[in-house]
Amino acid sequence: MKGLFITFEGVEGCGKSTQAQLLFDHLRERGYTVFITREPGGTMVGKKIRELVLHKEYDGITQEAELFLYLADRAQHVSTVIKPHLDDGGIVICDRFADSTLVYQGFGRGIDPVFIKKANLTATQKIVPDMTFIFDIDTATGLKRAAATEKEFAPKGSLDRIESAEAKFHDRIRSGFLQLAKKEPRRCRLMNGALPIKDLQRSVCGDVHALLKRRNIIA
Amino acid sequence: MKGLFITFEGVEGCGKSTQAQLLFDHLRERGYTVFITREPGGTMVGKKIRELVLHKEYDGITQEAELFLYLADRAQHVSTVIKPHLDDGGIVICDRFADSTLVYQGFGRGIDPVFIKKANLTATQKIVPDMTFIFDIDTATGLKRAAATEKEFAPKGSLDRIESAEAKFHDRIRSGFLQLAKKEPRRCRLMNGALPIKDLQRSVCGDVHALLKRRNIIA
Repeated sequence: MKGLFITFEGVEGCGKSTQAQLLFDHLRERGYTVFITREPGGTMVGKKIRELVLHKEYDGITQEAELFLYLADRAQHVSTVIKPHLDDGGIVICDRFADSTLVYQGFGRGIDPVFIKKANLTATQKIVPDMTFIFDIDTATGLKRAAATEKEFAPKGSLDRIESAEAKFHDRIRSGFLQLAKKEPRRCRLMNGALPIKDLQRSVCGDVHALLKRRNIIA
Repeated sequence: MKGLFITFEGVEGCGKSTQAQLLFDHLRERGYTVFITREPGGTMVGKKIRELVLHKEYDGITQEAELFLYLADRAQHVSTVIKPHLDDGGIVICDRFADSTLVYQGFGRGIDPVFIKKANLTATQKIVPDMTFIFDIDTATGLKRAAATEKEFAPKGSLDRIESAEAKFHDRIRSGFLQLAKKEPRRCRLMNGALPIKDLQRSVCGDVHALLKRRNIIA
């Protein structure tokens, strides 16, 4: 793996997707070979899977089925999109990755985290991000932000199944991400999602440029 | 779990689906509460998953993604169909189950069987069939039979992705099922799929009636 793999994680409405896009624009403008993608839904098969797991009409999906669908999406995404770009030496930015499954399905739904970690290794071919930005924000603010985005960009009432789940669930997710950031300080950068977008962008870009320098990756 | 769970397994064209249906008809006629289902595709979500894994247009699905899609299908199927019927005391007949994943994705595709067994336990909520009929037939005959069935019942050229895979793969599958039958003789009944349908039916029904008697399940 010659390239650089950067993931963005956090609770709903934490600002990670905005920052992932801003980092992508920033690196591309500076001439880097950079690719932005997301989970679930980063492949053709993944788009079908995303429909299954996020739409309200399939509200009866069990938590174990949900786990395996996310893993299927990830396996396909890593093998056909992420790994080829990294092998070519590119920078890959991914909005949600293996950490989201550990936190949402483990901390959130209560599925055995040891099994989820093993399953993630099978799905990712053991690829681990070089840097992970974890955006933290209090649950109420995050959910309000997510709902506002939804109102702006999507048809009314389509707020997806996970975003409309109960607040307690989201508190567990927040706590899971905070624990993860504490446990893996070398890989994870904990960001205060309540800060202004510009300040966060400056911070993210600074960390990434330092990493590019350490790895001798030039545009 | 008060009911009885019977699965039918084996290579393509081994005759398992025919025998599963014949057993279902036989038990229903005798007044038992019996339910027949299959994997993949035993639920609404499962039908979508079945489309993804079996149709030629998605030929680019990686073997790990395929594994997780089968597990998602199974998790949904066990939780919403198989377990409720068993809890009600019914007899559930299932055409393919966890053994198929172990054999096809493990023996066939080479994914770690230890991981597959663990993942199956998560998907099945540790439910194990009370009796499993494994139908054996030589690969060439089986594939010819599967192709003939396809010609009869399905539009031309739609022979699914797995049935059109190479013969060596099917030889590994056959060998995997034979090993499984040998390893779990209490649960598994190895049947010679080349025998006449009537003879096999008599044998299957005899074994099931003996099991029903041992469990004191009456119609």
